[in-house]
Amino acid sequence: MKLYSYFRSSAAYRVRIVLNLKHISYDTIPVHLVRHGGEQNSAEYLDVNPQGLVPSLDITPTINTGERELKPQIITQSTAIIEYLEEAFPQPALLPINLIERAYIRTLMQIIACDIHPVNNLRVLHYLEECFDCDKAEKITWYHHWLATGFAAFERLLIENGSTHYCCHKQVTLADVYLIPQVYNALRFNLDMSPYPTINRIYQHCIQIPAFVDAAPEQQPDADI
Amino acid sequence: MKLYSYFRSSAAYRVRIVLNLKHISYDTIPVHLVRHGGEQNSAEYLDVNPQGLVPSLDITPTINTGERELKPQIITQSTAIIEYLEEAFPQPALLPINLIERAYIRTLMQIIACDIHPVNNLRVLHYLEECFDCDKAEKITWYHHWLATGFAAFERLLIENGSTHYCCHKQVTLADVYLIPQVYNALRFNLDMSPYPTINRIYQHCIQIPAFVDAAPEQQPDADI
Repeated sequence: MKLYSYFRSSAAYRVRIVLNLKHISYDTIPVHLVRHGGEQNSAEYLDVNPQGLVPSLDITPTINTGERELKPQIITQSTAIIEYLEEAFPQPALLPINLIERAYIRTLMQIIACDIHPVNNLRVLHYLEECFDCDKAEKITWYHHWLATGFAAFERLLIENGSTHYCCHKQVTLADVYLIPQVYNALRFNLDMSPYPTINRIYQHCIQIPAFVDAAPEQQPDADI
Repeated sequence: MKLYSYFRSSAAYRVRIVLNLKHISYDTIPVHLVRHGGEQNSAEYLDVNPQGLVPSLDITPTINTGERELKPQIITQSTAIIEYLEEAFPQPALLPINLIERAYIRTLMQIIACDIHPVNNLRVLHYLEECFDCDKAEKITWYHHWLATGFAAFERLLIENGSTHYCCHKQVTLADVYLIPQVYNALRFNLDMSPYPTINRIYQHCIQIPAFVDAAPEQQPDADI
């Protein structure tokens, strides 16, 4: 497999954690979201991912097909990639068997994947600047607002469900996979994390797990921190 | 089941379509997102959904439990609700069996659920106004920008995959369930839809299906169009 990735993309970070947890080896193809006006906007990359976003996962099988060239099989959108990996490589399971628990974990995933991350990603921040000529401080206020709004709901759900060292149960699930990269970004942007003790506890616990350590931005081949 | 819904919410509209396609009867509990400063912000509703968003689906079983009161079982986030309904009520299937096709449909779902809808929903438009004092025309420009960006990628994927009257194959899938409410909103906000002939064709076809007709905003008990 080949993962089109950017070290700082929290959506790519999620996919890297899942690949590591499931012991799936992959090659990283770096797509630098800032350099050269954003490499994701090149015609070449738009053929891979028409949205011009990372991550994209190329799962084209490497069978010798003689003269026929296989159409590349590429999955885009981190949640589509991750649900695919969970179905195609079921062990270790990152979603429980119980349907209501699965739904709860998907709720936690979507709070981050729908209501925090897309409102705060690079292209939205750029467009804010373009439309409203806002400065860095205004962009940070915007960024913090959506993080704080989302984390407050996330924290409340964790407390109501008695979370300790993981979001759910006594093992890693996809909820942790989505939470950890978002907290990493929150810390990078200096959000005050003191209102979220449960999230902090889970973060401190999960970042010590090898699959999370190896997926971290600073461990990536394209890291230019 | 009880669906906390707002007639114009495209996320609630998706869930209504799935409930109808699967012939699941439900009661609507209206949550008016505008009236009284937004009924979703009441303490009562925040107990149902700590994010203060619609939809929420109450699936608490109605068993006579004697003196013990069942803890309400409520699922929030439309994608978590819809994946739950697909697992708990598999017929008719709204995702195919093939894992790569499932991934493709989830990609289409997420283009709308992550990269169009959350950047354009009411709370984001309100916050734009609060932060940047923008007027109605600026909000419409913002709204159209994310619709056009997302629809362009969606259209390209549909063309590459040979879509005709549905997003995928010859039957309704979750991709159609996500697309139709988003097009409904685009038309309401007068987006020029001419660059998206495939999306238009699928929209015109799907809005004639009874499950989609009955889920439409103007058919809801809380419609105040």
